[in-house]
Amino acid sequence: MTSPRPSDVLGEIYASWAVEMSRYPDMSIELLRMIFEDWQRATAEPEDVTYRETAIGGVPGILVTPAGCAQEQVLLVMHGGGFALGSPASHRKLAGHLAKACGASAFVAGFRLAPEHPYPAALEDGLAVVDGLLERGHRIEDITPVGDSAGANLAIAMVLRLMREGRALPAQVITMSPWLDMENTGATLDTNDATDFLITREGLQANIDRYLGGTQDPRDPLVNPLHADLSGFPRLYIDAGSVESLLDDAVRLHELALKHDVDVTFVVGEGMQHVYPFMAGRDANADREIGSIAAWYRAGR
Amino acid sequence: MTSPRPSDVLGEIYASWAVEMSRYPDMSIELLRMIFEDWQRATAEPEDVTYRETAIGGVPGILVTPAGCAQEQVLLVMHGGGFALGSPASHRKLAGHLAKACGASAFVAGFRLAPEHPYPAALEDGLAVVDGLLERGHRIEDITPVGDSAGANLAIAMVLRLMREGRALPAQVITMSPWLDMENTGATLDTNDATDFLITREGLQANIDRYLGGTQDPRDPLVNPLHADLSGFPRLYIDAGSVESLLDDAVRLHELALKHDVDVTFVVGEGMQHVYPFMAGRDANADREIGSIAAWYRAGR
Repeated sequence: MTSPRPSDVLGEIYASWAVEMSRYPDMSIELLRMIFEDWQRATAEPEDVTYRETAIGGVPGILVTPAGCAQEQVLLVMHGGGFALGSPASHRKLAGHLAKACGASAFVAGFRLAPEHPYPAALEDGLAVVDGLLERGHRIEDITPVGDSAGANLAIAMVLRLMREGRALPAQVITMSPWLDMENTGATLDTNDATDFLITREGLQANIDRYLGGTQDPRDPLVNPLHADLSGFPRLYIDAGSVESLLDDAVRLHELALKHDVDVTFVVGEGMQHVYPFMAGRDANADREIGSIAAWYRAGR
Repeated sequence: MTSPRPSDVLGEIYASWAVEMSRYPDMSIELLRMIFEDWQRATAEPEDVTYRETAIGGVPGILVTPAGCAQEQVLLVMHGGGFALGSPASHRKLAGHLAKACGASAFVAGFRLAPEHPYPAALEDGLAVVDGLLERGHRIEDITPVGDSAGANLAIAMVLRLMREGRALPAQVITMSPWLDMENTGATLDTNDATDFLITREGLQANIDRYLGGTQDPRDPLVNPLHADLSGFPRLYIDAGSVESLLDDAVRLHELALKHDVDVTFVVGEGMQHVYPFMAGRDANADREIGSIAAWYRAGR
């Protein structure tokens, strides 16, 4: 493994986690969760944003309100962490930067985590938030699923479920470093292994096992959107870092979206790690990418 | 050790840390720091508060601004964590609740930590913030040092340094579960050992060794305010939990303050753990205590 660039705060955080995880390979899920809360450290506090803990559709989370935003527009943030780790707290500041740039509010959903709650608990919680927002009077086209890593998988799967049920769909979906392939076969797992400071095939497999619970088919489109028919899918934004092990999931999602005539935008951050927008407020690459997402979002609403 | 009360979120957090720390007694300082960031979990997001990362007097930190507060009034929050752990992020929400209740702004100082930076680095950083605030036009009587645990030690020591230098003093000092005794002799280390879910004499000694760096006298009043002459000390607020191992530090500080005719208020939270105001927004005992601190603060300003 190479070393992080000197200014790469996210790479440094990932490398420090990797040290601890390799030192204690039998780490409890509780300790892993504490470590992944450290994600928040990558992000600067966004200014002029307030927070409220509340439940929407029965799902607890943090409602993020930038000053002067269009509150009826909601980014429904499904956080990353392999379906088993991460929280509204780890993603609060990232959501704040995104919401502020988009001129929208955001709700970071505290969905149920695996392995205590395997598939489909998280997906159902995400859909319960959608229903809760609709009940509060939000229009479906004003609700934008947003997800990073495993959260991107959930954001896409939520829309696939709505499609399957013949329901009205969100107008846009935003994914950052999506993790989709529950068969764990991406080429960049090998080719970017030396430059990705966090992700390993073994680590991914542990979370696959937690999420699928030993019973779910890893090729089911609702856990592995790379096997989905995306015809009719909403306008889709994808980004990923060029040096991350999960780049190939983003590349394959982009190809699949093109094949199914989805209006898709794909941005690759040169030299960037997994979910590099986490460095918002601390790194020009992240700030530029937040700006890119927001320009795309505003153009489509 | 007994078990936390069912609703005791802070006790549950401390108990979960204790499990991990006893499982891995050789845990790196980096991993310990990640674990102590989990403190933030005890506190609900305070509403209508905004945050800004900035440096004051060259010390980085988080400026906390409740809507409609008197911004010239500043709580200078020195965070706990044994001089070696904790951060502005771990204490952001606690500072938000305190500032909101007091109708003041707050700055949570990201002072240098031991063992990389032993005494007097943290103390000097705290004083640099005071000077930075004075340079910005704040009056010394509008700057209130606030500290929990080791941060309370620093808050008091900062004022002792100003007294020694013959400088004008803050009007008030707020301490929550102060940790003061670097000789590690408090009676409640033994008598509350079974009911305190976090603190152990061994854990304290490790942080004493980190902070004193093997050279500083543990009886020096600037590291151990229980040996200070408090004559002329500002109005002082102290609280502690009745079941915590460090209760005796608070009791002895209270006695010392009375002996030296300090205007002192001492509140003991029945059945409460170390720094129980951390549960602000989640627990009635913590909310009541935040209200008690704020009423005392407003009466004295």
